[in-house]
Amino acid sequence: MKAWLSRLTADLPSSLTSCEDLARFELAHAIPSVSFEFQHDPALGEEFRISRKENHAVCIAGGSAGILYGAYALIRNFLEGNSLPDHLESSPRYSLRMINCWDNADGSVERGYSGQSLFFQNGKLSYDPFRMRELGRLMASVGLNVLCINNVNVHFPAQLLLEDMLPDAAALADLFRPFGVRLMFSVDFSQPMRHGIPTADPLNPAVLSWWKETAARVYSAIPDLAGFLVKADSEGRPGPFTYGRNHADGANMLAEAVRPFGGIIVWRCFVYNCRQDWRDTMTDRPKAAWEHYAFLDGTFADNVILQVKHGPFDFQVREPVSPLLLGMKKTNLAMELQLAQEYTGQQIDLYTMIPMWKELFEELPEENIMSVAAVSNLGNDENYTGHPLAAVNFYTYGLLAWNPAIDPRKAVSSWVNLTYAFSPEDERTLTDLLLSSRRTYEKYTAPLGLGWMITPHTHYGPNPSGYEYDLWGTYHKADRNAVGIDRTASGTGYLLQYPDDLQRKYADPETCPDLYLLFYHRLPYSFRMKDGRTLIQRIYDDHFEGLAETEKMSRLLLTLPFPEPDKTVISDRMQRQLHNAKEWCDIINTFFHRLSGADDLHGRVIYE
Amino acid sequence: MKAWLSRLTADLPSSLTSCEDLARFELAHAIPSVSFEFQHDPALGEEFRISRKENHAVCIAGGSAGILYGAYALIRNFLEGNSLPDHLESSPRYSLRMINCWDNADGSVERGYSGQSLFFQNGKLSYDPFRMRELGRLMASVGLNVLCINNVNVHFPAQLLLEDMLPDAAALADLFRPFGVRLMFSVDFSQPMRHGIPTADPLNPAVLSWWKETAARVYSAIPDLAGFLVKADSEGRPGPFTYGRNHADGANMLAEAVRPFGGIIVWRCFVYNCRQDWRDTMTDRPKAAWEHYAFLDGTFADNVILQVKHGPFDFQVREPVSPLLLGMKKTNLAMELQLAQEYTGQQIDLYTMIPMWKELFEELPEENIMSVAAVSNLGNDENYTGHPLAAVNFYTYGLLAWNPAIDPRKAVSSWVNLTYAFSPEDERTLTDLLLSSRRTYEKYTAPLGLGWMITPHTHYGPNPSGYEYDLWGTYHKADRNAVGIDRTASGTGYLLQYPDDLQRKYADPETCPDLYLLFYHRLPYSFRMKDGRTLIQRIYDDHFEGLAETEKMSRLLLTLPFPEPDKTVISDRMQRQLHNAKEWCDIINTFFHRLSGADDLHGRVIYE
Repeated sequence: MKAWLSRLTADLPSSLTSCEDLARFELAHAIPSVSFEFQHDPALGEEFRISRKENHAVCIAGGSAGILYGAYALIRNFLEGNSLPDHLESSPRYSLRMINCWDNADGSVERGYSGQSLFFQNGKLSYDPFRMRELGRLMASVGLNVLCINNVNVHFPAQLLLEDMLPDAAALADLFRPFGVRLMFSVDFSQPMRHGIPTADPLNPAVLSWWKETAARVYSAIPDLAGFLVKADSEGRPGPFTYGRNHADGANMLAEAVRPFGGIIVWRCFVYNCRQDWRDTMTDRPKAAWEHYAFLDGTFADNVILQVKHGPFDFQVREPVSPLLLGMKKTNLAMELQLAQEYTGQQIDLYTMIPMWKELFEELPEENIMSVAAVSNLGNDENYTGHPLAAVNFYTYGLLAWNPAIDPRKAVSSWVNLTYAFSPEDERTLTDLLLSSRRTYEKYTAPLGLGWMITPHTHYGPNPSGYEYDLWGTYHKADRNAVGIDRTASGTGYLLQYPDDLQRKYADPETCPDLYLLFYHRLPYSFRMKDGRTLIQRIYDDHFEGLAETEKMSRLLLTLPFPEPDKTVISDRMQRQLHNAKEWCDIINTFFHRLSGADDLHGRVIYE
Repeated sequence: MKAWLSRLTADLPSSLTSCEDLARFELAHAIPSVSFEFQHDPALGEEFRISRKENHAVCIAGGSAGILYGAYALIRNFLEGNSLPDHLESSPRYSLRMINCWDNADGSVERGYSGQSLFFQNGKLSYDPFRMRELGRLMASVGLNVLCINNVNVHFPAQLLLEDMLPDAAALADLFRPFGVRLMFSVDFSQPMRHGIPTADPLNPAVLSWWKETAARVYSAIPDLAGFLVKADSEGRPGPFTYGRNHADGANMLAEAVRPFGGIIVWRCFVYNCRQDWRDTMTDRPKAAWEHYAFLDGTFADNVILQVKHGPFDFQVREPVSPLLLGMKKTNLAMELQLAQEYTGQQIDLYTMIPMWKELFEELPEENIMSVAAVSNLGNDENYTGHPLAAVNFYTYGLLAWNPAIDPRKAVSSWVNLTYAFSPEDERTLTDLLLSSRRTYEKYTAPLGLGWMITPHTHYGPNPSGYEYDLWGTYHKADRNAVGIDRTASGTGYLLQYPDDLQRKYADPETCPDLYLLFYHRLPYSFRMKDGRTLIQRIYDDHFEGLAETEKMSRLLLTLPFPEPDKTVISDRMQRQLHNAKEWCDIINTFFHRLSGADDLHGRVIYE
């Protein structure tokens, strides 16, 4: 019911208004047998240093937030069944650990699978203060510190966050402050035009002046606002292109407006041609972000952060790391993840993300980015995430944002321990199951890096040709002989956007890792994989395995002693996942069988 | 602006309250140089007999409606440029010539492409009396006599037509009565359950009793109501199946309720499994209507009419005539057509239907049916039909319903003459163009009887695999070798529902007419057509021809001297049709090229 807070049984009273108050309250209730002392040291900021005093009391030193994070680190450790450490020091790898909510002012959530907005209703801020404290607790307990409450697609009247809604937003910021959480707002680049200015041209002095005045007003109400988040010139949003300006012009103008207040501008790099002609084989959507941004490296103000989706497409099950994250060395970068399971099962199918995130860091040196952001998977459902087990993604995202080196098994197991008081065996079963869930989903949905065989618009369930002739630039061009797009130098050239070592790794289908094979290459169904199987047989095998694994997962899951109401919700959704996996397996296999004519070597049923 | 009434320049005053008044007014304004006499003979009913008196006056004998129809026949004849006939006698082939509006009480029109409802707004009857008279005039001028004003899918509160809305509906009936037009209502089979009766079981006496009382109340307000139209047990509508009853039980119960008032029950035969599993090859949707109804032949009351869609699927560009229309000899049947261009261009693309209707009558003896019905293509757009040229379908439907033997060219030419005062050459150009438009649309959309390569839900534009794995039972199962469903005795057996002569005609792909080939047969792309071409080459050729013909049509159309605003609307929609035809041509050809690998013999561009 309370995500992983189920073992923090004491409700937080509203009287706690500082990080230290909170830390004291949480420790006293969670670990009552131990006495704690705090040593406030503003210089330590979010870092904490835990030590055992001679009187056996445990001392947490840190800035305000550091003390709170130290307290939660101890509580997590304790609830995992470990003894209290004598020494523990930790500081976050990334200073901004952000959650982006795609909540609209009307209360809907774009790509939300957990009910309605926690913040908005009927065009206004409208929230339950108790749930806000609980959300703050969820965030602080895993070290997340920035919350952007409104959708990057700023639909009217969400703009009024900077205007009529500002007093209510300031009250909301007050609620989150004790949790070390600062708010952020998504803003509409054309907003000055709602105020009599005939342009939103970032080089027009009246525009800058409007934003300066607005920033001053907003920061006077919320002095610790993290900043503004902007989606510009993308999927119909306004932006600098309208005025013949580039995105550095746009971002730097806003950065100047918030600079006096210590604010930052988070500028999303999600620009592509969403009106592509399927006949046009020269345009390749994954190339778009690089083409729009790489040449601007070094031109962004120091309080601008470019927020780059982890892959070059859009949150598919498997994408290579975005070349922008590797190539823009002179720019502040944030990597954007998506906790909301848009293409990855919509919180019906199990899909634990941390194995995917760890893969990204294998190719992305930690130091390339300075922040992380994740699209929220929360909503006003009783359990916050629709599927109770989907909360593992929020939790582990927090741990990863603090420490990207964390072991995925340890992170998932920590969540299981905090959420359910399971036996060690059941805990291991659930941890294994969650850790394997992404690969299982991948097997039954996306052949070998292909992606986009999902139903357009809804993004749930199979539709193998749904995007083939559409405007979105996401084609596989499967025909009777071959499938995939050649993105090497001999094809669209996308691979040339990468450093040499990665180019070498992926350019040759003989050395390219199997799971990225059809992302980079167009190959005949008869292509021999490294293990000797043909490509088509591997596609069949993966899909049959994905279904079989789902069936096994279902049997295991139903043996676990989940408490109600989780048990019922989990069981219902598992039934839906089973149906979905069966549809995917059968439809994708039939699709490729119709094309290739190749029979399954093992004689399993592929429908006509 | 007024569809084909543009040359009837005098507005109808509201003071005209009888057919004779109207006939007199129309003749005096349209043919002022001639004097007319009426000879009222109720026994003639809708029939009219026109003769020239010795005093040179023209005499129209008939019942009230007959006189009106005679007057419009003379006016049409006159506006076509013919001299007045000395003798003309005519009576309608079918007694009920119906229009079914799919208008919802909220003002929307299901599958409507001409704006909002003419009758409803915000859950209430709400109409412009002037437009109602104009609609009556449109109907009477081509002999249509029944108007069902609400959607067969009766969404709340449309049920209130029988209740709160009844006084307003009676006033509406008054407006249409002078035009010889009687109203009809679509009813909700479960409506008794809104009134405290726990069931809608047709054999439950309380249910019959509720309907009897309701019919008495409704007929006391509208004594000449034509009757009720029912869609039951279809696509989520309630019906007798819920109670283990059959459709004769349901229809006969309602028939008993309206019998005392001379009412009829029009019962739609559109029942199929809309939750079909694509893996199930035993179920074949076209077989459904026969399986649900044929065994009931002879069991329906004499005031029940089964309304059967013209083909076994759902208003595709080309379908064989429904076997029910051929096989239910002991049942009153109505054939249902669809003027609304749901699958046939949505009043953007030109699509004149009368050539298709004539083909239906080639296989359907006129006497097999006793009525005709057509789903309306009207709405509250200024010109009533969205595309000004779409009005030809409403007009020619009226003429055909009166006389199925009518020559299509004569019918279309009559509409052109009434609508536009063109030169004979321009009239011929437009008539040719309209007559060819269906075949052109067919060429670029539907390969050889296949259908269903259209975008699901919207039903506009190509999506060649959109229905392949869906629940609707409309599959083509194209693979690398072959395409189509075998519906002969060796396949699903659908063809066995037909009389022997038709079975013989269609069973052998060597004798089956080309245009129905892939409806009845699954054939390899290498199949040799009668003209020596391969099937795949014929598919390519048809699509290229369809596009080329559209381009030619566009050039011709823009030379014609349409008045404004028609000219602008026609030109804009022609641009959209060109775009649509190009998409269809390219996408369908690419789809089949990817599957078959066959190159176009003429080297035209087929995209990757």
